[in-house]
Amino acid sequence: MSADPAFSGEVRRAAEWVRSHLAAAGLQAELVETGGPPIVYAESAPVPGAPIALVYGHYDVQPPDPLDEWVTPPFEPTIRDGKIFARGATDDKGQMLTHVASIASWLETSGRLPLQVKLLIEGEEEVGSEHLGNFLRANADRLACDCVVISDTSQFAPGVPAITYGLRGIAYFELRLSGPKQDLHSGVFGGGVANPANALAKMLGALIDEQGRVTIPGFYDDVLPLSERERAEFAALPFDEGAFRRQLGVDSLAGEAGFTTIERRWARPTLDINGLTSGYQGQGAKTVLPARASAKFSCRLVPNQDPQRVAAALRRRLEELLPAGIRLELVEHHGAPGIIMPLESPYLQAAAAAVEKGFGRRPVFIREGGSIPVVNTFAAVLDADVLLLGWGQNDDNPHSPNEKFSLDDYHRGIRASAALWQQLAAITEPLK
Amino acid sequence: MSADPAFSGEVRRAAEWVRSHLAAAGLQAELVETGGPPIVYAESAPVPGAPIALVYGHYDVQPPDPLDEWVTPPFEPTIRDGKIFARGATDDKGQMLTHVASIASWLETSGRLPLQVKLLIEGEEEVGSEHLGNFLRANADRLACDCVVISDTSQFAPGVPAITYGLRGIAYFELRLSGPKQDLHSGVFGGGVANPANALAKMLGALIDEQGRVTIPGFYDDVLPLSERERAEFAALPFDEGAFRRQLGVDSLAGEAGFTTIERRWARPTLDINGLTSGYQGQGAKTVLPARASAKFSCRLVPNQDPQRVAAALRRRLEELLPAGIRLELVEHHGAPGIIMPLESPYLQAAAAAVEKGFGRRPVFIREGGSIPVVNTFAAVLDADVLLLGWGQNDDNPHSPNEKFSLDDYHRGIRASAALWQQLAAITEPLK
Repeated sequence: MSADPAFSGEVRRAAEWVRSHLAAAGLQAELVETGGPPIVYAESAPVPGAPIALVYGHYDVQPPDPLDEWVTPPFEPTIRDGKIFARGATDDKGQMLTHVASIASWLETSGRLPLQVKLLIEGEEEVGSEHLGNFLRANADRLACDCVVISDTSQFAPGVPAITYGLRGIAYFELRLSGPKQDLHSGVFGGGVANPANALAKMLGALIDEQGRVTIPGFYDDVLPLSERERAEFAALPFDEGAFRRQLGVDSLAGEAGFTTIERRWARPTLDINGLTSGYQGQGAKTVLPARASAKFSCRLVPNQDPQRVAAALRRRLEELLPAGIRLELVEHHGAPGIIMPLESPYLQAAAAAVEKGFGRRPVFIREGGSIPVVNTFAAVLDADVLLLGWGQNDDNPHSPNEKFSLDDYHRGIRASAALWQQLAAITEPLK
Repeated sequence: MSADPAFSGEVRRAAEWVRSHLAAAGLQAELVETGGPPIVYAESAPVPGAPIALVYGHYDVQPPDPLDEWVTPPFEPTIRDGKIFARGATDDKGQMLTHVASIASWLETSGRLPLQVKLLIEGEEEVGSEHLGNFLRANADRLACDCVVISDTSQFAPGVPAITYGLRGIAYFELRLSGPKQDLHSGVFGGGVANPANALAKMLGALIDEQGRVTIPGFYDDVLPLSERERAEFAALPFDEGAFRRQLGVDSLAGEAGFTTIERRWARPTLDINGLTSGYQGQGAKTVLPARASAKFSCRLVPNQDPQRVAAALRRRLEELLPAGIRLELVEHHGAPGIIMPLESPYLQAAAAAVEKGFGRRPVFIREGGSIPVVNTFAAVLDADVLLLGWGQNDDNPHSPNEKFSLDDYHRGIRASAALWQQLAAITEPLK
């Protein structure tokens, strides 16, 4: 809801809820004002000689529309079949709470944690974390840590826990085209003046070719190719395309030619339209030639694409495609590059042991198609390894109606988190 | 407003208003139930030996949105600078009323009209006149006439009255594409499944080429070419492209290569998107891969294109263009062919003399880009010439915010209409 200023009061209420629960667990916890939704910050007592872990999460969520597709209301959490249904159940309120719960358990049972844990829970993740970067840079000393722990991803499949070592980035745009100064009668004027909706379709349609490849010149120049080892390991994962099709309700999958579905989703860049608006959208027929047409669309980026280079190349391409009689405005909403973590990191190996304790099975190492833009910022500003320990499932419907989170995964996540603090504390020679 | 069932009560109120005014003028007037908005029908006394004229108009109007662009509310008629601003001022309430007023004047001053006039004012013109055809066919004897008079078009320019001898037709469609069964996270799934909004842009973008020509196979096969005489006469009309550009607020015009702006608007077919809907249309950014995308769009047709042949060819083309993983529904909203009237008709010549009396200048003979689908039905069912005597101006904003009608044109239209009854009555040998 952080996308809509009308809900800023509700968003703040969520922040206060998180802070009060951290304080109740025994941590020093505060709200930090940023100019946007506040950041919740908390920390436990320092433990000399042990590494420091920083937990990052977010209390903000995506808008819930289309509301009429929810079985139970998005903001009235409801348990059905061992799952809790609510906006934010998996992205990211439910997953984030596993760490709050494990810390509370340690403090309740042992009186102290085996290492210092810092928690940073923000409220702008779904809209690009506008103020977080400044906060991290301004508080780099206070936030100093050896690794960052984030649970905002999914397991590979039910019973197949995973650690995510790669994420796609994003570059989100809004293209606004305008033509005549007002809506016109399509009979009187049609054919004699450029139609912004026609232009929008033609321009967007030209951005992807018949092979599913993005046609923006230079778009693929910086793409880090998949290694043969990665392609082999991805191919060995227990991925059932039929089940995936049925999950999505489609009779065939599609995407960039020459790549598997997993490769397309994890390691290849995309261009997806997120929304279209123009002209008459009501019931029946209105013979209008619309004055304006706009599209929200976004590129999922992979290492080592740069969002700003992509934006600049896109702008050049759109200006080339712009027909006479149409004016263009391109809004750059937010961007973040993709990232890959080193598989040999001792923190990643400690995390793998903790996940095995919590879930009863050694995790697979996977990538993820979604973006967690702040991961890059953490890696860069805090010089820390980032551990993406996802407790969710792929059908948890993040960003969609009927978002959910399994209570079993919630409890396994808490156990893995509790084990993580012990595994990390056993690293006797922190890297820095 | 006839497009929206929520306004059926208001639409009926407009019908009753028209009926009561015709009755007050001294005509037999009634509401005829049709299953949709009622038809207002009235007639004056028969005049043996004189032709019979039938006036057709419509009391329904287009929806007024976008409401916030109106200077004064669309349903509170307001006079500014000698013009009346209101939805329907020119299309068609205001123009239709000129005939009501001229008939009332004849009856008040002479006690009788010099020929029998029948009036048929319907309430579904803006949504395809669904029930009118059946009404005409079922009442062909009662409605028998020598010519049909319709004032629902424009003058060529201020001070240049016109009689319209050709109209474009229309074929209006709604294309609904669906992909995954629900909206998806564009990061988790993007690249691995076909996006209906991407498909919509690509499919619609492929329907028009770089020359502004529609790419539906066979689309131009039946198009009646412009004659050299027509092209020469159109070129001689006082058309100021610069003023036209400024009226529309565009820095350049556009359209099918090889034709002038007048030719493109009057005598060449088009394909214009009327509305686009998909995914997230609110404030800010939502990273959704939409489950559905749809477009309303329409082809303006010219003689001798057949709307059903065009629809069938479009459907074949869209099915060819449909990518894997996307399902298609094509709704055919309404259609009507274009039409051309014979310039040598004595009724058309009588009308020219009447317009000269009302406006002080002989009219030019023009075509019009808009559709009046019932004109075809009148010509076919009643075997009558159709006189399109437009009193409006091209900048009257029909179908747009701030629709208006000049009071001077209103009064000149009343005088021309009054003269028309006399001119038509002087045709001593009606054609049938």
